[in-house]
Amino acid sequence: MVIAEAQEGLRYDRKAVEAVIAALAANFGNRLVTSRAVREQHGNTLTWIGNQPPDAVVFPQATADVQRIVRLCAAERVPVIAFGAGTSLEGQVNAPRGGISLDFRDMNRLLAVHAEDLDCVVEPGITRKQINEQLRDQGVFFPIDPGADATLGGMAATRASGTSAVRYGTMKDNVLALKAVLANGELISTARRAKKSASGYDLTRLIVGSEGTLGIITELTLRLAGIPETIASGVCPFPSVEAACNATILTIQSGIPVARIELLDALQVRASNAYSKLALPETPMLFLEFHGTEAAVAEQSQRFGEIAQEFGGGPLERATRAEDRSRLWQARHDAYWAQCGLRPGAYSLATDVCVPISRLAECVTETQRDIAENDLVAPIVGHVGDGNFHVGLMVDRNDAQEVARVHAFLERLAERALAMDGTCTGEHGIGQGKMKFLPAEHGEPALDAMRAIKRALDPLGIMNPGKIVAL
Amino acid sequence: MVIAEAQEGLRYDRKAVEAVIAALAANFGNRLVTSRAVREQHGNTLTWIGNQPPDAVVFPQATADVQRIVRLCAAERVPVIAFGAGTSLEGQVNAPRGGISLDFRDMNRLLAVHAEDLDCVVEPGITRKQINEQLRDQGVFFPIDPGADATLGGMAATRASGTSAVRYGTMKDNVLALKAVLANGELISTARRAKKSASGYDLTRLIVGSEGTLGIITELTLRLAGIPETIASGVCPFPSVEAACNATILTIQSGIPVARIELLDALQVRASNAYSKLALPETPMLFLEFHGTEAAVAEQSQRFGEIAQEFGGGPLERATRAEDRSRLWQARHDAYWAQCGLRPGAYSLATDVCVPISRLAECVTETQRDIAENDLVAPIVGHVGDGNFHVGLMVDRNDAQEVARVHAFLERLAERALAMDGTCTGEHGIGQGKMKFLPAEHGEPALDAMRAIKRALDPLGIMNPGKIVAL
Repeated sequence: MVIAEAQEGLRYDRKAVEAVIAALAANFGNRLVTSRAVREQHGNTLTWIGNQPPDAVVFPQATADVQRIVRLCAAERVPVIAFGAGTSLEGQVNAPRGGISLDFRDMNRLLAVHAEDLDCVVEPGITRKQINEQLRDQGVFFPIDPGADATLGGMAATRASGTSAVRYGTMKDNVLALKAVLANGELISTARRAKKSASGYDLTRLIVGSEGTLGIITELTLRLAGIPETIASGVCPFPSVEAACNATILTIQSGIPVARIELLDALQVRASNAYSKLALPETPMLFLEFHGTEAAVAEQSQRFGEIAQEFGGGPLERATRAEDRSRLWQARHDAYWAQCGLRPGAYSLATDVCVPISRLAECVTETQRDIAENDLVAPIVGHVGDGNFHVGLMVDRNDAQEVARVHAFLERLAERALAMDGTCTGEHGIGQGKMKFLPAEHGEPALDAMRAIKRALDPLGIMNPGKIVAL
Repeated sequence: MVIAEAQEGLRYDRKAVEAVIAALAANFGNRLVTSRAVREQHGNTLTWIGNQPPDAVVFPQATADVQRIVRLCAAERVPVIAFGAGTSLEGQVNAPRGGISLDFRDMNRLLAVHAEDLDCVVEPGITRKQINEQLRDQGVFFPIDPGADATLGGMAATRASGTSAVRYGTMKDNVLALKAVLANGELISTARRAKKSASGYDLTRLIVGSEGTLGIITELTLRLAGIPETIASGVCPFPSVEAACNATILTIQSGIPVARIELLDALQVRASNAYSKLALPETPMLFLEFHGTEAAVAEQSQRFGEIAQEFGGGPLERATRAEDRSRLWQARHDAYWAQCGLRPGAYSLATDVCVPISRLAECVTETQRDIAENDLVAPIVGHVGDGNFHVGLMVDRNDAQEVARVHAFLERLAERALAMDGTCTGEHGIGQGKMKFLPAEHGEPALDAMRAIKRALDPLGIMNPGKIVAL
């Protein structure tokens, strides 16, 4: 019985899946699980996108396991889907055509640390918190922080970034090299540990952000940063979102190397005050962090304070004690849960546009007007130093009219960002949820090139089918 | 008559070339040139790799011209080769199978500057000096400096970097988006101006470093940096190359954001003293540059001075006057010409390995021993903050024995770098000269993936054939 729409070359049927499951059971024993509960946990669970569970979940323990699984699946043309922590937001882990989910829970080792070279080698199932716990003694850390305690494999696959990208870049900038199993079961190693190279096509950056549709990452070499001598955080109120955005623009332009600069609009501040027991004035806020020597941090925060004042903001209230800093950033990371508290029972849906920073104030204020005009409950948080912001739409899914208004809002938001030379996703990726925006964002010739690459590396269409580009 | 070896699908013959030349003449008039002198100028002229001129040179003035040329060539399966300033070092502009060279001399405009967003849009024929002259008034600059006044299209195509990459990254990090004409004549636009995006495959990074083998760049959106408040340069002597490398390692590890940190070994210092009329002690030297606020620059250079002292180096002699700084960096950029002065009539051949910085001292000292043991004249300069160094081999091409010793040395150098987890090219690219090192550096599965991508995007094999991967 054919149980999913055929993809070009994809002969996916129940018999094939059963053959793969039998072979996997013989190879992996109780590391193969087919229970409904476990399968459902391995489909999308976090967002409005439906749960599409795989047919089975297998827990590889080594790269050779991944190669064996992919080869078994390729032989029967059964999809393979990599799974990290399940924190992706656009349905990246769903199995719309069934198939086998590879859960990297057991491949979570820190394999090597080269502190002198500021790099380390990890298995893809390690999470960002695990890495930093294990690195702390050596004076180095991995700076990318998407909020969720995602796995590094998942973060690389979705080209994640987060609050510290303004200073340290995104996963694209912090994966030095990786190993990945391709659709033919071959293992590629994309680069050496040298800090730069002009040798051949940049396979590292091709796999980063490809969401498991071109290969399955089995090892990552990551750039690290030295733990700064001094870290200072701070909060700074502004009279308007526009003033906060303009202060951010001038901060970046002035070359002040802020490590984080995060916007919370007044509604988000209210939500976070309630959820995280803060006592901030309910006005737009920037949360900031400065890294450097003591003198550099003092100079940076003073200069930022002066800029804030120019736009009617301030004063910058500094938090230098580690526990105060942690409390602040925990509140920022809990923004999602705080949003949920604004409208109990409602569903939170996170958008993710990113625009050139010169258009940020305009994009945010137009979006706020749109929210108000459509009677939506939707606080805004943003990695504003990068021009990236998230609208947290609190949706009553039982109200069909509201759901329709939300869908129309999402289309307008993407169009607004694209019209400003921006992108429909700064960091969440495409998955299933944003495929519809790709033609407008990239144009058909570039999409055709992506499809050609997909077909070249995955001619059977077994690698996480139904994500990014449909063949 | 078949005048070149057939590439898969490449039916290259004289009749086809004549048909293309006739069509181009009809379209482009005197912007098509077939004189021997001009054709030879458009083959490789700078290095030991032979000159392989194209059959004709055409000067496009707009993206639509490039599309027309590529379509005419595709129809007859005639190669197309992009040409910028001709400063590539591995034969990237050669036409081993003949074909049409596209010289971007007339497409050299700065199309837009977005100072607020720290980016600009350029045509590929603009050179790095032209860009910076035109940007200066706006308080921003393009930081990548490979030494030669290369075009930005060429720099992107070869993934160039140079002296300032330690602070500002390579072309991979500084091209935000690009437009390129593919082998089918279609124009792709790889990304928007947003500072980051998680949308689709990273076509920008795929084209950067692909040396015209996947597409021809017709527009680039570049990241800019604010002109620093203060720039200070300096020279710092060391008792040994090892001491200079170790001071560099500690500088990078300590997070001192040096803008440039360049090694010259004693022989190079002697050569530069003679050529650039410097009066430096003939001992290994670091040339440095610091960017930032006055206080930050003062702190950085003081901290560097302390590190230098730890390794028996110093004192750091600072040059803050613009003319002294220019003189210093001009001398660094003239290292090649200075080398030529060491052995008049000899030929200079630049190597380009890059290793993890922890292995740098070892790699350089082993290489120096190798040079001495083989009686070669070969000063060393290096972008040591990145672990990248160049041996300038002064070769007497009439001495067959010496040429053989040089070839054996080149093989050992590449093997040494690869054994240290390094690359055979930090910034010069593969071209024709380094194709032989690709299997050892990347392994067959990764090379196969590169070949699959090449075939997918250039099924006829017309895009700069015979470079990077041979089909």
